[in-house]
Amino acid sequence: MGMTITEKILCRHTGLDELHPGMLINAKVDIALGNDVTAPLAIEEFRKAGGKKVFDEDKVVLIPDHFTPNKDINSAAQCKIMRDFAREQEITHYYEVGEVGVEHALLPEKGIVLPGDLVIGADSHTCTYGALGAFATGVGSTDLAAAMLTGEAWFKVPETIKFVLSGSLNPWVSGKDLILYIIGQIGVDGALYRAMEFTGETVASLTMADRFTIANMAIEAGGKNGIFAPDDITEAYVQPRAKRPYTVYASDADASYAQVMEIDVGRIEPQVAFPHLPSNTRGISEVGHVPIDQVVIGSCTNGRIEDLRTAAAVLKGRRADPRVRLIVIPATQEVYRAAMKEGLFDIFLDAHAAVSTPTCGPCLGGHMGILAAGERAVATTNRNFVGRMGHPRSEVYLSNPAVAAASAVLGRIAGPDELT
Amino acid sequence: MGMTITEKILCRHTGLDELHPGMLINAKVDIALGNDVTAPLAIEEFRKAGGKKVFDEDKVVLIPDHFTPNKDINSAAQCKIMRDFAREQEITHYYEVGEVGVEHALLPEKGIVLPGDLVIGADSHTCTYGALGAFATGVGSTDLAAAMLTGEAWFKVPETIKFVLSGSLNPWVSGKDLILYIIGQIGVDGALYRAMEFTGETVASLTMADRFTIANMAIEAGGKNGIFAPDDITEAYVQPRAKRPYTVYASDADASYAQVMEIDVGRIEPQVAFPHLPSNTRGISEVGHVPIDQVVIGSCTNGRIEDLRTAAAVLKGRRADPRVRLIVIPATQEVYRAAMKEGLFDIFLDAHAAVSTPTCGPCLGGHMGILAAGERAVATTNRNFVGRMGHPRSEVYLSNPAVAAASAVLGRIAGPDELT
Repeated sequence: MGMTITEKILCRHTGLDELHPGMLINAKVDIALGNDVTAPLAIEEFRKAGGKKVFDEDKVVLIPDHFTPNKDINSAAQCKIMRDFAREQEITHYYEVGEVGVEHALLPEKGIVLPGDLVIGADSHTCTYGALGAFATGVGSTDLAAAMLTGEAWFKVPETIKFVLSGSLNPWVSGKDLILYIIGQIGVDGALYRAMEFTGETVASLTMADRFTIANMAIEAGGKNGIFAPDDITEAYVQPRAKRPYTVYASDADASYAQVMEIDVGRIEPQVAFPHLPSNTRGISEVGHVPIDQVVIGSCTNGRIEDLRTAAAVLKGRRADPRVRLIVIPATQEVYRAAMKEGLFDIFLDAHAAVSTPTCGPCLGGHMGILAAGERAVATTNRNFVGRMGHPRSEVYLSNPAVAAASAVLGRIAGPDELT
Repeated sequence: MGMTITEKILCRHTGLDELHPGMLINAKVDIALGNDVTAPLAIEEFRKAGGKKVFDEDKVVLIPDHFTPNKDINSAAQCKIMRDFAREQEITHYYEVGEVGVEHALLPEKGIVLPGDLVIGADSHTCTYGALGAFATGVGSTDLAAAMLTGEAWFKVPETIKFVLSGSLNPWVSGKDLILYIIGQIGVDGALYRAMEFTGETVASLTMADRFTIANMAIEAGGKNGIFAPDDITEAYVQPRAKRPYTVYASDADASYAQVMEIDVGRIEPQVAFPHLPSNTRGISEVGHVPIDQVVIGSCTNGRIEDLRTAAAVLKGRRADPRVRLIVIPATQEVYRAAMKEGLFDIFLDAHAAVSTPTCGPCLGGHMGILAAGERAVATTNRNFVGRMGHPRSEVYLSNPAVAAASAVLGRIAGPDELT
């Protein structure tokens, strides 16, 4: 019996010859990730467990990205705990303010995560790295603490849902729209504890940015992980970045799936997830009149250079509606620099955007654009739960960068085709 | 009997033919300024007083700069109060996130304040505009409310201290060092409720940026206002920006001063104000070994393009010490764009700086770089009171941008001459 790519990666990280869904396994981790929200708790648990030294200073990755540059005294204290620990443990992959970026954009960019890796991160969107053909999943701080100490973690091997994507993308339709559409179809628990494997002819036309966005939001359907088998596009992204060997896996032809879902992407228009669930999606043509107060373009979901290029293409020569605060947040310093060099910042500034230093910021209601009661934002982020970006009576609408940009210009949720 | 420039401007804004220090006067204001911290209170008082319409929608200026882009729900609510009021009242000079900058850099840049103006602002550093030859002073929110309603404000005419600056500036000595030196000499109440009039041969060699910095910190010596008589440098700054007539005043030769203080600037080296008072100054050569955790370059004191050029000149080809978080905050979008165009951002990014969208941010412990317990920052800001930038057990050292930049590189407080 064949194995899926997820099963193969998990198996390779155990001493087992084969495994199957439902098994409880203990696996070696290649990367254990924490951020300024979750690492301090993990460090505390690590100490409580008698931890003196992390299992491997190259494999524990600590990223201060959520409330940085420090938004207040508490976040400063959290960052200090993590920073002091990183220095004490001589952590290789600790990145300070000025070098840091949003973790799930930064790690692939720096070549820290590679195909075939097993990655756990104390952040739900750790699943992003599945775009590289890695197994990557979010865990709690205690699990992170255990992995920091032992280099291992326990998993129940997930069943896999296979998504077979066919057809060509319509104009302004991106990875964000595909995953929003899928979540809209299956619901926020539609892939609960399952691997979401993305396959089909359409995949070859998806950029790495599209794939990162899709894998990033697997958790929004409850998925244990999202994954793409590496191809030429993956290799082109990985090879200049990799500083260690890696292994490329693909599902066997006779692998077993819990479910197979076929999707004709040609039928998908740009999607908007209405409050207060990512599954509450509508096609852009069905949105109606929804005035907005803020637009956020950024995050681990859509803060990459491709996303900023798309936003800039829509914003070029245009201005945000005076009633809309437009906030652009490049996900990493590399993205920031590239966007600046390419002239995208000129377009953003002409459009009256505030361009922030990289941070998770408003996505999780952290800082850099929090909403007041009654305010509405369109955001390229990944969650629109009640109060996610601020006041419990504020609203977040999720979209791709093109829709976000067009909405900023028109002062209401709109697709770029509405701009004349 | 002649009048000082301060007395002349105040007089011109009353119905009186002359006035003298100690008189209580009611004067017309040209600009009444509020920000996201102070305007909401003023608006509340304005409503309580039965206010329906501001006295002049061109003269009430509302700037959301302290906690923006909104750092949390409370600041978002404050901004919303101000924004809603600005829209209702059709305030001409309301600037939204994406257009806004630090108020005391923005108003001169936009030509909103001009020579001869009488300006009140519900912010202590309103005195900045004295650099333009305006009378400008900080007031409370209630005073602002009254002015918003009536267009007038009460003042006790201040006595004036005349500072006569002579000699040439030493290398790396700027307006920041002059004012820190002066405050060090006279103390934080050394000019209590007095006008600080800056004169002397050295003034002709001071850029507008230097003058803004000096006037900005008049309040740190307790001054009612700081002021420079306009000259060619002032005119060159003002003329391209002015959209209404203005009047240039100068002190009469026989004006009366409470005190005259002569200062040979050639004896001044770069200054550092140690915790926890701006008057606790030392020359850079007397600083000793003070390791630091953060450097902030920005604020209404030193966030102008000249300041960023100086910092970039020091940082070029260098990197911040890995133990230092270097945060650069252009004061306005115009400064941001200019710095980007001139290549300064490349230098900052190469130096591992985080470059923020304009905000007052960390200066007042707002956001964008708050200190944890035990941390030390060098900042180009204006106050180093206990807990000013974060935890009560953190420390702020005030300096000019060159010292701040050199300190970032060396990881301890240092002048640029120490860099080899």
